[in-house]
Amino acid sequence: MSKELYYNDFTLGQRMESASSITIEKADAIGFAQQFDPQPYHIDDEGAKNTMFGELIVSGWHTAAVSMRLKLETDFRYVAGGLLGLGVEYLRWPRPTFPGDTLRIVITVLEKRQSNSKPDKGIIKYKLETFNHTNDLVMEMVTSVIMPIA
Amino acid sequence: MSKELYYNDFTLGQRMESASSITIEKADAIGFAQQFDPQPYHIDDEGAKNTMFGELIVSGWHTAAVSMRLKLETDFRYVAGGLLGLGVEYLRWPRPTFPGDTLRIVITVLEKRQSNSKPDKGIIKYKLETFNHTNDLVMEMVTSVIMPIA
Repeated sequence: MSKELYYNDFTLGQRMESASSITIEKADAIGFAQQFDPQPYHIDDEGAKNTMFGELIVSGWHTAAVSMRLKLETDFRYVAGGLLGLGVEYLRWPRPTFPGDTLRIVITVLEKRQSNSKPDKGIIKYKLETFNHTNDLVMEMVTSVIMPIA
Repeated sequence: MSKELYYNDFTLGQRMESASSITIEKADAIGFAQQFDPQPYHIDDEGAKNTMFGELIVSGWHTAAVSMRLKLETDFRYVAGGLLGLGVEYLRWPRPTFPGDTLRIVITVLEKRQSNSKPDKGIIKYKLETFNHTNDLVMEMVTSVIMPIA
């Protein structure tokens, strides 16, 4: 059996950092944007020159997807039955991510409560912060997950 | 010159539907999840059987990315200088997306205001709803974009 964690294993204020980091390579940034967010400042250097950024930036939705991957490099990966998100309370990108940036995340447990409709499950609200390799905050979100109590 | 639209071209309450739809094929759903959201109910049929869904579902972040692509199948694609998001106020997935689902979106303009810090720009807050091919709501978000006034 692999390790399994439950609602009762997480504590209010608990802080978890991703065990590894992910670098968003330029080709991957352009590939993601071509598929999902094909705007001039995401898909080619020339097009980006004439925009408010003046250079290529990574789609915020690519930063979000990579952050979700990094979330599974914390103890959340061991949650019994998988990590089921209940929606996002807010999501902000205070700074752009640039191709070549290396990202890591920090999760902080903000709230814990038993589910009203499913008493054998608990809901954990947490903040997820994504930082680049120079420790600038590039994404911040507050979201909740539901998991078995014990 | 291609068509260009500005803040002044959008009206309060305006409703825009994506000109086309996108089907999320099973192989793409699994590929996205393997890269960004490798949880049992996203990456293989067998693993999904023992989860609360009982079958494979598409990562909510894949649904979000496809919805962003569909957003550029509305008049938002013509916004001068590109569509710059200012963060998400909330994001919910009321129902799962399943492999093979065909998605379309509807955008509704909720608020318009001039930017305080950049008087030549305006901010539009809108709701984006993503529907599957049986017209179930699978995603809903409220978010804002900034664009030149005129």
